[in-house]
Amino acid sequence: MTVALGVGPMESGLHGSAAEQPQAGATGKVLVVAGTHGNERNAPWLLEAWARWPGRLHSAGLALCPLIGNPEALAQSRRYGDRDLNRSFQTALLADPARQEGEVLRARSLLAAHGAEGADPCLVAIDLHSTTAAMGNSLVVYGRRPADLALAAGLQRQLGLPIYLHEGDPHQTGYLAEAWPCGLVIEVGPVPQGVLTAAVVHQSALALEATLVLLAEARRGSLPQPSHLVVHRHLRSLDLPRHDDGSPAALIHPHRQHRDWQPIQAGDPLFQASDGDTIAYHPPAGLENQLVWPVFINEAAYGEKGIALSLTSRERWPVEQRWSEALQTLASRLRAA
Amino acid sequence: MTVALGVGPMESGLHGSAAEQPQAGATGKVLVVAGTHGNERNAPWLLEAWARWPGRLHSAGLALCPLIGNPEALAQSRRYGDRDLNRSFQTALLADPARQEGEVLRARSLLAAHGAEGADPCLVAIDLHSTTAAMGNSLVVYGRRPADLALAAGLQRQLGLPIYLHEGDPHQTGYLAEAWPCGLVIEVGPVPQGVLTAAVVHQSALALEATLVLLAEARRGSLPQPSHLVVHRHLRSLDLPRHDDGSPAALIHPHRQHRDWQPIQAGDPLFQASDGDTIAYHPPAGLENQLVWPVFINEAAYGEKGIALSLTSRERWPVEQRWSEALQTLASRLRAA
Repeated sequence: MTVALGVGPMESGLHGSAAEQPQAGATGKVLVVAGTHGNERNAPWLLEAWARWPGRLHSAGLALCPLIGNPEALAQSRRYGDRDLNRSFQTALLADPARQEGEVLRARSLLAAHGAEGADPCLVAIDLHSTTAAMGNSLVVYGRRPADLALAAGLQRQLGLPIYLHEGDPHQTGYLAEAWPCGLVIEVGPVPQGVLTAAVVHQSALALEATLVLLAEARRGSLPQPSHLVVHRHLRSLDLPRHDDGSPAALIHPHRQHRDWQPIQAGDPLFQASDGDTIAYHPPAGLENQLVWPVFINEAAYGEKGIALSLTSRERWPVEQRWSEALQTLASRLRAA
Repeated sequence: MTVALGVGPMESGLHGSAAEQPQAGATGKVLVVAGTHGNERNAPWLLEAWARWPGRLHSAGLALCPLIGNPEALAQSRRYGDRDLNRSFQTALLADPARQEGEVLRARSLLAAHGAEGADPCLVAIDLHSTTAAMGNSLVVYGRRPADLALAAGLQRQLGLPIYLHEGDPHQTGYLAEAWPCGLVIEVGPVPQGVLTAAVVHQSALALEATLVLLAEARRGSLPQPSHLVVHRHLRSLDLPRHDDGSPAALIHPHRQHRDWQPIQAGDPLFQASDGDTIAYHPPAGLENQLVWPVFINEAAYGEKGIALSLTSRERWPVEQRWSEALQTLASRLRAA
């Protein structure tokens, strides 16, 4: 990893937070993060291979900053040490001097070094993850920042990747990708924690390279966009049924396991109780008349978060001109390799 | 779990170790262990469900002692704390008072409580595991104890389960099942660490119930046996190719991933280097003319042991009369529920 020359201090943005509106004159790299979770080893393998054979991954002529998100956790093949790094980019948490957990320190350090106003500034963050859920090769976008949507739309046009739009979930916040002016997660599965597979490495590389090509096109002012974007918008998460003592009283029904991105309707098998009985899906309050598509079904790391799966709404949105304009404006300031 | 009345001290066996030759008069239960590795959660789920609905699992009329092997590791969803419990049943290790790791203490405690000469004696140990490798529903047998072979042969006859016979491997010793007069591992996969799936729970229950039925038949002196037993006998393990710094230089080739129990021949793709090149299988010294069947391909926990896969020899053995005699003699002392 090369460290660029530092840039001088910049005025605070007038039109929003610094992360949303970096100064027009500042340039930066593309941050490529692997191992934000230390037991997701495929993307770190990819970056390691790339470091040894720099010609192997095509950077599309952009200056990149590849790094391991949580090296200590990776060394131990654990998701994290003190707390989930990918929930640690919360403004209030980072600003609280009393918070000194390892991942809080790491988040501060990453922003100081590679944030949009950091020593080696990066304008876009691509965060590479894997999951035990059968998500395939997919994207996770946080909220509705125009530049993120333009990038996701371009990737969906190019590779057909499904998009999980995560928003409106007060229980899950502080994602790394949100802390850069533009960013998203490339999420590939199913793969067990701690396991390297050539297929997952290959899928991650495909999606990453396509992302870099799109950013280079946006930099040239010619970002290809589809007419519509299909997103799976987060509605809410469901936990497993639990006994009074908090232990799980059921597991994902075998007819639902590995069926991410496929709709579920009232009455469909959802869980299997520990006495063997099938527990059907009953729409939670407010979703009675809504067809929903589950994602992140049985992700190993989400048990501790009380998430057995998340329900989404499949929506087809017209792609807006202002999205690509936002990404092209941002990308015009990306540095060449 | 009920604790039986203690039995008095017994003479040491004259015809071998106490574990191999328990006293003819002593009776005992069947030990059923789940969670020997704390991130293999399906079998603990099964035992938990069984504890809540005792009628659900059929014990075939035998007195059982179900327990969690490593409760602390299970609570943390980690394979182990200080060291692998399933490599900690080594006589010299257990006898060394200087060794006080958590899992050594646990192994001593399990033997004191439930060993063949323990307070609540068990004569047979069934140890329930899962793996990220595509082992299917399978058995692991350690060495060639006649009673183990009789039990495995009966299970293969009944369910067609493949058998990995682990022996002659000085690097991997001290398995739990070896520390009881008769014992084997039921190994089910693929399933990620930390993930519960109904299919794996169901496979584990099937194999466990069939084992208990066989033990009950052996107890009645009528153990069904096939004419032949097919074993996959351990030859040696292979590590990933590694860089000089010890980091992996390749991963399992996609054509080999999830192809456990399928033969590999010289020239077949085995690894994929980080530069993308295929690394073919070249038989190690001594195995040039031997057709081999890999097992435990890409098991997540074996990376730290330097095992990318193990090579076995597929062998068809005539079932010997003395095997069932050994198991029937032992099983005649199993207690009824």
